[in-house]
Amino acid sequence: MNEAEFIAALRALPLHLGARGLLDDAAVLPFGGESLVLTHDMIAEDVHFLGSDDRANVAWKLVAVNLSDLAAKGAEPVGVLIGASLTRSARDFVTGLHVALAHFDTPLLGGDTIAPGENGCEVFSCTALGRATHLPVPSRAGAKPGDGLWVTGTIGDAGAGLAIARGAQGPAELLERYLRPTPRLAEGRALAPHVHAMMDVSDGLLIDASRMAQASGLAAEIDLSLVPLSPHLSDVMAAATAGDDYELLFAAPPGFEPPVPATRIGGFIDGAGLRLSDKGAPVPLPPRLGYLHER
Amino acid sequence: MNEAEFIAALRALPLHLGARGLLDDAAVLPFGGESLVLTHDMIAEDVHFLGSDDRANVAWKLVAVNLSDLAAKGAEPVGVLIGASLTRSARDFVTGLHVALAHFDTPLLGGDTIAPGENGCEVFSCTALGRATHLPVPSRAGAKPGDGLWVTGTIGDAGAGLAIARGAQGPAELLERYLRPTPRLAEGRALAPHVHAMMDVSDGLLIDASRMAQASGLAAEIDLSLVPLSPHLSDVMAAATAGDDYELLFAAPPGFEPPVPATRIGGFIDGAGLRLSDKGAPVPLPPRLGYLHER
Repeated sequence: MNEAEFIAALRALPLHLGARGLLDDAAVLPFGGESLVLTHDMIAEDVHFLGSDDRANVAWKLVAVNLSDLAAKGAEPVGVLIGASLTRSARDFVTGLHVALAHFDTPLLGGDTIAPGENGCEVFSCTALGRATHLPVPSRAGAKPGDGLWVTGTIGDAGAGLAIARGAQGPAELLERYLRPTPRLAEGRALAPHVHAMMDVSDGLLIDASRMAQASGLAAEIDLSLVPLSPHLSDVMAAATAGDDYELLFAAPPGFEPPVPATRIGGFIDGAGLRLSDKGAPVPLPPRLGYLHER
Repeated sequence: MNEAEFIAALRALPLHLGARGLLDDAAVLPFGGESLVLTHDMIAEDVHFLGSDDRANVAWKLVAVNLSDLAAKGAEPVGVLIGASLTRSARDFVTGLHVALAHFDTPLLGGDTIAPGENGCEVFSCTALGRATHLPVPSRAGAKPGDGLWVTGTIGDAGAGLAIARGAQGPAELLERYLRPTPRLAEGRALAPHVHAMMDVSDGLLIDASRMAQASGLAAEIDLSLVPLSPHLSDVMAAATAGDDYELLFAAPPGFEPPVPATRIGGFIDGAGLRLSDKGAPVPLPPRLGYLHER
């Protein structure tokens, strides 16, 4: 069973309306007189982090990727629940968790610990709870024909950082973007009142843009020459298909002037799928648009 | 690092007031004018379930144990988030999840999937969100000197069921109590307005009673002859130190008449720790009060 099949099977279960059909980064539901935003991620050794990774960085990343889902909804963090394996590196994990929670000004709400299984399985989980700051809360759906497709920050740095973590040569700041991503919380809150659709870029720019297009029932166009790269990178196709950016991707109406630094990289038109170009000249889609959880 | 050391380390982190000092079964926090109850559990092969267990039952148990934490707060379930490894048995897991969510009338809010690591690590997680039905929301603390100590249902059946799952002979209904525990949701809501303290019995009656006593700054007394056993069981010490009961344990004032079936097994007095007796005669504490997550 791959990820798509599993999620399709989950869609056949009794879903809360706030689950948004399991098509979004987070659940959004009314609670009392406010809107609650809830997201959950689980990470495991050899899948999301390397055995050699400092568990303090793993803790940072775990918190950051969950807060990034809140950022994509324009939500402010309320707190997190943490689950952790009790391995030898649990102490490093807690140290990193302390740094991350203090940095993001997000308190711990609770958690769970599990003894490692006989196979030494090391796994961590996080549930982040947020409060929506603007209604309606942006979703992946909602882009309209003629909207621009925008992205914050630069793309591909974390992918290059992963190569460095695996032994390649490269600047420390790329490694840092892989190890300690920054959720765009302030940017998400600033953008939420203005966008038609928003999500974070977690599995790769191209695959995530195609997901926004699909959820919105439209085609997305991206001009690769417009994709913002840091000075260290030059291979835009590698950058646009690498994961772990945690930048915000959003759809906004023509003439939009973003309240935070962001780059227009394309737009939405009637149709379906993703179309690439380079300064206007069509470019074929690469065989892999991003990272997929499969076996 | 064992569970107690890990939780002690977490207590040094920035905690939300709703985390209740990580001393309770769930986080309780105000949200939108209501009280939100949030709990998170992670389970792994060889720790919480056996490799031979039907993953449909594992899914039931995962949901049930989280809803049991809500029950202990008198909360009504709003929905759950699920995390799951994409192993061959993922399909059975989803089937069991469907049965459990329908049975407990609790919708899915979202989730996460992870590819299994190279070591085939199989792990599942659940975050349950509930709405408190009574304020203040009961905690483990709050028992008063003179209070009775009460428990719903019968104790030790799931422990005997675990032995059956491992190959011992025994009645199917004990196996069922291990495989498919029932959270006492209606009982929890009925009790919440009346109790001074409440929690669920997950790691064993004795260890959980001692935790309630410690959180309340009191000593707990249990008369083993009063502990309710099903007709299949006779070894009360084995029953009182076995885990996975998911009955509710609560403190209530003298003369309390429970609105749901429950048994008074002892009470609280000034002091600290747990004191056992059998029809009034002192009984020494066993070396192990219940299940501890350690390595």
